[in-house]
Amino acid sequence: MSGTAQIGVTGLAVMGRNLARNFARNGLTVAVHNRSRSRTDALVEEFGSEGTFVPAGSAEEFVAALERPRRLVIMVKAGEPTDAVIQEFVPLLEPGDVIIDGGNAHFEDTRRRERELRERGIHFVGAGISGGEEGALNGPSIMPGGPAESYESLGPLLERIAAKAPDGTPCVSHVGPDGAGHFVKMVHNGIEYADMQLIGEAYHLLREVAGYSPAKIAETFRGWNDGRLDSYLIEITAQVLAHTDAETGKPFVDVVADRAEQKGTGRWTVQIALDLGVPVSGIAEAVFARSLSGHAELREASRSLPGPVAEPLDEAAAARFADRVEQALYASKVVSYTQGFHQIQAGSEAYDWGVDPGAVAALWRAGCIIRAAFLDRIRAAYDGRPELPSLLADKDFAAEIGAAQEDWREVVATAARQGVPAPGFAAALAYYDALRAPRLPATLTQGQRDYFGAHTYRRTDRDGAFHTLWGGDRSEVTA
Amino acid sequence: MSGTAQIGVTGLAVMGRNLARNFARNGLTVAVHNRSRSRTDALVEEFGSEGTFVPAGSAEEFVAALERPRRLVIMVKAGEPTDAVIQEFVPLLEPGDVIIDGGNAHFEDTRRRERELRERGIHFVGAGISGGEEGALNGPSIMPGGPAESYESLGPLLERIAAKAPDGTPCVSHVGPDGAGHFVKMVHNGIEYADMQLIGEAYHLLREVAGYSPAKIAETFRGWNDGRLDSYLIEITAQVLAHTDAETGKPFVDVVADRAEQKGTGRWTVQIALDLGVPVSGIAEAVFARSLSGHAELREASRSLPGPVAEPLDEAAAARFADRVEQALYASKVVSYTQGFHQIQAGSEAYDWGVDPGAVAALWRAGCIIRAAFLDRIRAAYDGRPELPSLLADKDFAAEIGAAQEDWREVVATAARQGVPAPGFAAALAYYDALRAPRLPATLTQGQRDYFGAHTYRRTDRDGAFHTLWGGDRSEVTA
Repeated sequence: MSGTAQIGVTGLAVMGRNLARNFARNGLTVAVHNRSRSRTDALVEEFGSEGTFVPAGSAEEFVAALERPRRLVIMVKAGEPTDAVIQEFVPLLEPGDVIIDGGNAHFEDTRRRERELRERGIHFVGAGISGGEEGALNGPSIMPGGPAESYESLGPLLERIAAKAPDGTPCVSHVGPDGAGHFVKMVHNGIEYADMQLIGEAYHLLREVAGYSPAKIAETFRGWNDGRLDSYLIEITAQVLAHTDAETGKPFVDVVADRAEQKGTGRWTVQIALDLGVPVSGIAEAVFARSLSGHAELREASRSLPGPVAEPLDEAAAARFADRVEQALYASKVVSYTQGFHQIQAGSEAYDWGVDPGAVAALWRAGCIIRAAFLDRIRAAYDGRPELPSLLADKDFAAEIGAAQEDWREVVATAARQGVPAPGFAAALAYYDALRAPRLPATLTQGQRDYFGAHTYRRTDRDGAFHTLWGGDRSEVTA
Repeated sequence: MSGTAQIGVTGLAVMGRNLARNFARNGLTVAVHNRSRSRTDALVEEFGSEGTFVPAGSAEEFVAALERPRRLVIMVKAGEPTDAVIQEFVPLLEPGDVIIDGGNAHFEDTRRRERELRERGIHFVGAGISGGEEGALNGPSIMPGGPAESYESLGPLLERIAAKAPDGTPCVSHVGPDGAGHFVKMVHNGIEYADMQLIGEAYHLLREVAGYSPAKIAETFRGWNDGRLDSYLIEITAQVLAHTDAETGKPFVDVVADRAEQKGTGRWTVQIALDLGVPVSGIAEAVFARSLSGHAELREASRSLPGPVAEPLDEAAAARFADRVEQALYASKVVSYTQGFHQIQAGSEAYDWGVDPGAVAALWRAGCIIRAAFLDRIRAAYDGRPELPSLLADKDFAAEIGAAQEDWREVVATAARQGVPAPGFAAALAYYDALRAPRLPATLTQGQRDYFGAHTYRRTDRDGAFHTLWGGDRSEVTA
């Protein structure tokens, strides 16, 4: 016997609830289920008029409410809760049914789950979903992985609820097999960390070096949002900076404690990049900056460390500096995306996923936190040259950075001189300069390693591995 | 029945062989064993005259050769080979026997092995050993973890073969329970990565900005080695830079391929620091710099990216710049050690190890790759104030950095302007400036997170978690 619901959502906390409402609002019959019944009832009571919901009190009722092949979306916490829910439902499912995990799972867990469920003929789709509560309700960016054939029945439903890019295309497509969707979502979050860190540094520099008030910085960001930096994060930054705390009358950012929190996907991004051998220094600095801000004792103990005395700028110089900061922010942002897309390509190669980087950029054009006009250009760069080894190798981006670099360098130099921390800007610039360097001091590193550990080195002029007898006559031997 | 050997070494590749010789040279009777007999025979044949070796053809013979409680050192590859050897020997051992793993195990593996063997009454000691081949033979720095009581019988033997600090103290002491020794050795290697990266950047800047030849840079490093930078790595750097390739007559560093390799402990250090929430940006940049150097295709595609035209310095300006680089190198090095010791303290707290950071600094004064005069001062800082929250909070280090900071800032600014990548110097400076900042842009990060994800924030003026109704009337609610 088969039910009538085209899709089911289990786990009705805010993300699950909003996703269920989104499906219902788009004309789908949605089975809804939650471990404790009260949330199910509350959803139907409060939003039942938005569409057709089939509330289910038990796992059995939930499964029975679904048409076949069944498609059920799990919206519970990553880790053990996800495994527990899968274990609960699997005995009730049949070959061909599709489980979609819409949480922030680690892609290795998704790979494991997909492998285990594949043996039972069940399609497991790890789907990254970005956009927060509001996106879940009104249109998220969706990054589904899992078996390609699952997308045939699932894709049309997801396309209905996904955000629409400016050209009308839904921000969802099959990213690749098994963990590819969650991997790409993880890198999305890593890039989000980097974007936020760079914006924070821009704010800090405008405040400390240009002497701008939060309101003035909000105005500056609004201006930037009309240009190539046009993006959701720049837009909300202007709103946050313009906000006044009602209680104290002070700028909102001046009453918020400066301890940034994090939930872990940024950290995963860096840890996995390290395993893949991909330098993601911008994301790493963003994660470190958040941790550092929380080390109250260390900061307290370091507050009296000496620093330079800032030199206040006059109005014209401040305006000129603000323009330079825009250049530095843009150039550093291009580097962050270069690093993130490098990681996606390296992951795709390591796990044989065949991820199309241009399609990923297209997915992020709307609905997600890092949505930005800029992503259309990344898509164009990869679509024009799918084997592009690095975004920096795209001639349009290269030309822009070429035009920005003098200001970018000046901003990094100014931050260093004036004692304003700008680890993201500095790391991005160092990455750029390292990539373009004809010769890196890695030669010396190899020489040192050969000296103390006989680790051998390669030569520029012929093949093979060599070792110098450092403790002997310093002749060279073939290793 | 009990044998006569006070210690046994199994796994006679170069590190194991040299360690066995070191024990024998210091008057101990050493049982030696290797999976394939030929290495055992070769050792006895070639070095038998150095002391008393008891060659063993089988695991049973090896164990029988040892006096009780048996102490056997495993010197095989980390990972599965180590587990395999442990599995082979455990059935032959008795409660109270001690297995020492002298390889570069991941500390989590060491924790697992210690737990498993503890149940059988066998002491498992994960011992970090640093110093390479030469150290193993003539005196390494040894960082044993495991049960404290194992050190009673093991310590005196290790003290005989360990390097001796300038004051005569052997560079070995019980670091802490279970995985503490391998953890500390891992951080040692992470710091080594950072040290090498900083030295590489100093070299690169002297070459590109000051226009110095490798020979001139070698001379500069030799001069630095007479001062506060006095260390093994600076010493061998001078030797590597002074070396001429016999085949081409060129400086050695100019014929070595600039692709740095790595074996993984640097990467582990960063990955674990991320889990512990410790910012180790200097180590991370060092690991990333090595990976980046190996991405030939990316580098090739980026070589034509625009950069600044370097301005050559005259001789006096070059000499002045070299002095500044020494200041930047020293200050950045202090930051690296600050980050590394922070990680050791965080690990010790997370795993309840009770590691004494001053004692760790003492262990590294001789025998290991990062041995340096400087470590005596770190020891003194922690001995004087064991609860020191950060090395930067030590007044002597703070004073030195205060004196160095102007030059340090100038070097970071110059690197940015002249297009020479100095990610380690820049990351260290940004860390320093972030730690001392009265307010960080983490406020803005928290505001953004609250805006797009309702993640809440804390206030500076009262306790609690708060959320602003960004999509509504922007009033604040208690979360």
